[in-house]
Amino acid sequence: MIPKAIEWLEDRLRILDQTKLPQEQSFIDLTDYHDVVLAIEEMRVRGAPAIGVAAAYGIALGAQGIKSESKAEFFSQLDQILQAFSTSRPTAVNLFRAINRMKKIAAMSGSIPEIKEALVNEARRIHHEEIQATSHLSQLGAALIKDGFTILTHCNAGPLATAGYGTALGVIKAAKEQGRRVSVMATETRPLLQGARLTTWELKQENIPVTLITDSMAGYFMHRKKIDCVIVGADRIAANGDVANKIGTYTLAVLAKENHIPLYVAAPTTTIDFSLLSGNEVPIEERDSQEVTHIQRMPIAPEGVKAANPAFDVTPHNYVTTIITERGIIKEPYEKELAKIARR
Amino acid sequence: MIPKAIEWLEDRLRILDQTKLPQEQSFIDLTDYHDVVLAIEEMRVRGAPAIGVAAAYGIALGAQGIKSESKAEFFSQLDQILQAFSTSRPTAVNLFRAINRMKKIAAMSGSIPEIKEALVNEARRIHHEEIQATSHLSQLGAALIKDGFTILTHCNAGPLATAGYGTALGVIKAAKEQGRRVSVMATETRPLLQGARLTTWELKQENIPVTLITDSMAGYFMHRKKIDCVIVGADRIAANGDVANKIGTYTLAVLAKENHIPLYVAAPTTTIDFSLLSGNEVPIEERDSQEVTHIQRMPIAPEGVKAANPAFDVTPHNYVTTIITERGIIKEPYEKELAKIARR
Repeated sequence: MIPKAIEWLEDRLRILDQTKLPQEQSFIDLTDYHDVVLAIEEMRVRGAPAIGVAAAYGIALGAQGIKSESKAEFFSQLDQILQAFSTSRPTAVNLFRAINRMKKIAAMSGSIPEIKEALVNEARRIHHEEIQATSHLSQLGAALIKDGFTILTHCNAGPLATAGYGTALGVIKAAKEQGRRVSVMATETRPLLQGARLTTWELKQENIPVTLITDSMAGYFMHRKKIDCVIVGADRIAANGDVANKIGTYTLAVLAKENHIPLYVAAPTTTIDFSLLSGNEVPIEERDSQEVTHIQRMPIAPEGVKAANPAFDVTPHNYVTTIITERGIIKEPYEKELAKIARR
Repeated sequence: MIPKAIEWLEDRLRILDQTKLPQEQSFIDLTDYHDVVLAIEEMRVRGAPAIGVAAAYGIALGAQGIKSESKAEFFSQLDQILQAFSTSRPTAVNLFRAINRMKKIAAMSGSIPEIKEALVNEARRIHHEEIQATSHLSQLGAALIKDGFTILTHCNAGPLATAGYGTALGVIKAAKEQGRRVSVMATETRPLLQGARLTTWELKQENIPVTLITDSMAGYFMHRKKIDCVIVGADRIAANGDVANKIGTYTLAVLAKENHIPLYVAAPTTTIDFSLLSGNEVPIEERDSQEVTHIQRMPIAPEGVKAANPAFDVTPHNYVTTIITERGIIKEPYEKELAKIARR
């Protein structure tokens, strides 16, 4: 049984520290919203949907801690809280969507106690909706997975990443639950090894056969016809269907196209950013270069070597076979088809 | 100054232990040929040309240790030595070429002492020829590198890998020596991190600016037009120009083609295997899965997870812009053009 990535305990937020997995299952109880911001920045909680859920609860937690009885002062402090979350990580749009919903619900509610209660309820609703959406999109997407398929996935887009059923891994799990035999090839996903540490761990618990490979091996197996389809999650999808996701996704997309293998992107509609015309507009987070020069704090390169560390890349929509959402399976022309299911 | 990867000291072979770099510059003196075989298997000495040179010296060392004065017995023991080297690693053809040369020279020589001396001389000649060839191909290849180029390379194909001037890194060094400004983006090259550990280390000592990236980031930088060309070495080139090289090379080749970036393969003609019609015939070494599930002995995945570990892949010749050899720069049609420079 995979433990809950995020659990709301009324006066605190409990998260499973994903940086410690798989060696340790360690939970952290957060009572100060600053610590929720830090947990997002340090990727103790990660994955686009899970970041949105954690931020929503974090805002509710922060609001509970505001002592002032003046509404002006309350909103001024709430703004600081919202601001802190909005600068925690730039790429996943679920974060900004959650922040906007929390801001809106606060503005619509009455007294300070009512606002505090409304914020908790809204965070719960955001969480519940992600569970529903990821579960539903997984059921829909499973239809694409045929019996005997070997599926390549990148990074981690399971329950840990979504605080729900999972997106890419959700689709795979649902196919298995529907009675089809599936096996998975998981890229380790450097620099932070979410594939090696989290995806293999989740799949083992689901009894889904998994083979770990380095990121550099995906092409080899595609070229040798060992992969039937590629499924990944997403951090932000533009209105034209361009997909920002974990660094390395673009590479898998190019390899898949070259080898005539379908690429499926599984994401709840909360990951679609209809305000961006294309993926070029997605802000790409550049993280600390130590994540590249070190692995779990151990140096792997000469001291002082310069390293780049873009955490995401953008896959142009023409590489994407379908986008699997809870509102349906979307194909080209993405701009038109995505507009039909817009969640505004 | 980069220390010598391989040094022959008459009664022993000194190698720089490349598994310990960059943290430690540790040399091992090998007096028993079994230890040379082991050093090749464990990749303490690695890189196609360097493996050939090490094996040649290792065979000479082994022959020196044969006590028998019967020629029949001498050749029987020599055969065992040749056999031990031929099963050390399967992919790099330089190894088999060196073994064949050593076998031939032994057969052609007279008395046992003469054979022993001839073997040492032949090993020296193989080493010297690799130094000459890599130096010459680097000078030729440098013409492809324009002022201001940013060059992507994979794995390590410098002095350490060649016991000479280098192949891919040789071309880059020569371009710099010819007065052009160059900078390098080096992939870390999982699983064994030769890019992170060795390539950055060599380039720093050459004062060539280098940025380390994970293997998954190469596509991102190509797509953003930050890479002017890709240069890699090779472990075995088939008669049709297909290139077996470090796992991940095929992926870079597909990305380069998709982004209209030239891919240059730099290799001495000792790396060309004219007996193979295509890359499909190259034996691909499958190494211990612990190299994937662990990094420098530290586990990065749940215990017992299955992992694949092909050490090489094959890039079909249609992805290769040119092959840079000491006998000239070769282009399509490779089968015809390579035949012209055949070294048989």
